[in-house]
Amino acid sequence: MKRHHTKEIAIGQIRIGGRNPVAVQSMTNTDTRDTKSTIAQIKKLAAAGCEIVRVAVPDETAAKAIGKIKAKISIPLVADIHFNYNLALTALANGVDKIRLNPGNIGSAKNTGAVVAACKERNVPIRIGVNIGSLEKKIETRYGRTAQAMVESALYHIGILEKLNFHNIVISLKASDVPRTIEAYAMLAKAVDYPLHIGITEAGTPKSGIIKSAVGLGTLLYQGIGDTIRVSLTADPVEEVRVAWEILKALNLRQHGVNLISCPTCGRTEIDLIGLARRVEKYLAGSHKPITVAVMGCVVNGPGEAKEADIGLAGGRNRATIFKRGRAIKTVPAELAFDELIKEINRL
Amino acid sequence: MKRHHTKEIAIGQIRIGGRNPVAVQSMTNTDTRDTKSTIAQIKKLAAAGCEIVRVAVPDETAAKAIGKIKAKISIPLVADIHFNYNLALTALANGVDKIRLNPGNIGSAKNTGAVVAACKERNVPIRIGVNIGSLEKKIETRYGRTAQAMVESALYHIGILEKLNFHNIVISLKASDVPRTIEAYAMLAKAVDYPLHIGITEAGTPKSGIIKSAVGLGTLLYQGIGDTIRVSLTADPVEEVRVAWEILKALNLRQHGVNLISCPTCGRTEIDLIGLARRVEKYLAGSHKPITVAVMGCVVNGPGEAKEADIGLAGGRNRATIFKRGRAIKTVPAELAFDELIKEINRL
Repeated sequence: MKRHHTKEIAIGQIRIGGRNPVAVQSMTNTDTRDTKSTIAQIKKLAAAGCEIVRVAVPDETAAKAIGKIKAKISIPLVADIHFNYNLALTALANGVDKIRLNPGNIGSAKNTGAVVAACKERNVPIRIGVNIGSLEKKIETRYGRTAQAMVESALYHIGILEKLNFHNIVISLKASDVPRTIEAYAMLAKAVDYPLHIGITEAGTPKSGIIKSAVGLGTLLYQGIGDTIRVSLTADPVEEVRVAWEILKALNLRQHGVNLISCPTCGRTEIDLIGLARRVEKYLAGSHKPITVAVMGCVVNGPGEAKEADIGLAGGRNRATIFKRGRAIKTVPAELAFDELIKEINRL
Repeated sequence: MKRHHTKEIAIGQIRIGGRNPVAVQSMTNTDTRDTKSTIAQIKKLAAAGCEIVRVAVPDETAAKAIGKIKAKISIPLVADIHFNYNLALTALANGVDKIRLNPGNIGSAKNTGAVVAACKERNVPIRIGVNIGSLEKKIETRYGRTAQAMVESALYHIGILEKLNFHNIVISLKASDVPRTIEAYAMLAKAVDYPLHIGITEAGTPKSGIIKSAVGLGTLLYQGIGDTIRVSLTADPVEEVRVAWEILKALNLRQHGVNLISCPTCGRTEIDLIGLARRVEKYLAGSHKPITVAVMGCVVNGPGEAKEADIGLAGGRNRATIFKRGRAIKTVPAELAFDELIKEINRL
């Protein structure tokens, strides 16, 4: 995995692009004007590991609420704005850390100039967010709903900002179709070196949406593409953050809590492995220890995988052997396996 | 996505490799000797879309049970065998469709010769299953627990079979570490043209295991690697099959039931989208219609995505517009949205 080179930019106190870790982003689904609910949700998101949060800004009241929200949260805040440049100016005046806005969609060159000037003054980046569901008519007519069309749309908006000598840019290209999304980002990564915010949009409910996002974002990250990620789910956004971290952990890009390995069980399994793995997972859910724990059912692959973990357990007939960093340290009756494993984890 | 070329082989009535669709595989976690439970689980797996099923064969009773199981199921059956070549011979005599066995691990050249002769006679393929947890000592000492070591181990076992002029081979290279697994398959795909069975082993409980598998298998499939897939989860194997299908659907490699697109909701959403999407998902769960349904919350990207689906819905303030293959066909009050959407889906 070789990372695609992008320039570094700052979003509040967070830096993305360059050699910075891939950042986890989410979006509130509260009414932004309801600052109490919005602040509460952002705090829950931050506690789950969200590093950048976006809020919808549909009107002036929402734009003004940003100051109040910013005062109560500790992670950078992004304003999601469509069509109305005045909302961007209000959000900026209220201390927003990043604006998501497509400069070609806010009316006139004068409007764009005003937003860009305010962003420059405050060192606030603009994310250009291309979505296949809302391409410019002209581009869609020429290229269809293709990866190429998304890239052309991004280049159009980038061009507007570059003409104003503004380069504090992040770009996203979203579609619900996974291969088209991957193709679009790969094309754009060859054309520009701005940081890329990656996501599969309208991925759906958790049952299928988690999988679509993991396939799409995983494939892009493995290609070294992606500086911030967002998992979009029709669900509580806290779940988006959990899934984003699992994707980053699966590729060893970031560490976040425990990495639990457990086998699928089969006709060889002689202990209650599903129950044991669930208990271990539940116990470790809140842990921030960056360790790998293996819970394995049998003697075929069990000891090998268990040995590679910081702490591992391999089941046998009514008993389990516990491994610590490659060495078997004890064999205990099955009914003591959970307690003994936890004891060893807590000793680390 | 250009598919890596592999030779075609037959597993019972199913063909894999070449231009055949990527097949979905799973493994029972019942005691194979308990034929009643094993048959019942295989029927549930087949109903969920499992196309090839593997059972553990730890002893002669299990090997003999294969005849009884085969008589009651309609999908090809694979016997998972370790160390004991007699179990392979019994499984073959009982009509098994594929053997998962590493020829270097069954004692002697004579033993391997006997298994290969029986496989040739019945046109039964052998899957060489390399697992990083059980590498040959010599290979692990030389290469460590690396992707290269897994490939060397596979080539060692392949060599044994090729010397016996046996080429009816499938290969898997499994590790719980996702990047190492991807790297190993990519290396092996350059070296051989046998069909590849791909999986992330010991992926863990559904919460993280689904994501590890989707990232790993998705990345490989996007590179054109993989002729059969197995998702390993510490859970009911029916869930493995569901996840495998979602991965294949995410990359447009196979169609299986409805593709549901829905947006993540945000501060712009003015209808109960999470509830609506869940109801639609639940209603369509058993459906085999190969259609795309979009359930979208707002006017920014909603109509665009909804238009691309076979049937789509875009919410607004207390109302929803229904789209059919690109055309808005009606706008209804929010409380009728579910019924009207389902009515249109059933009309397709």
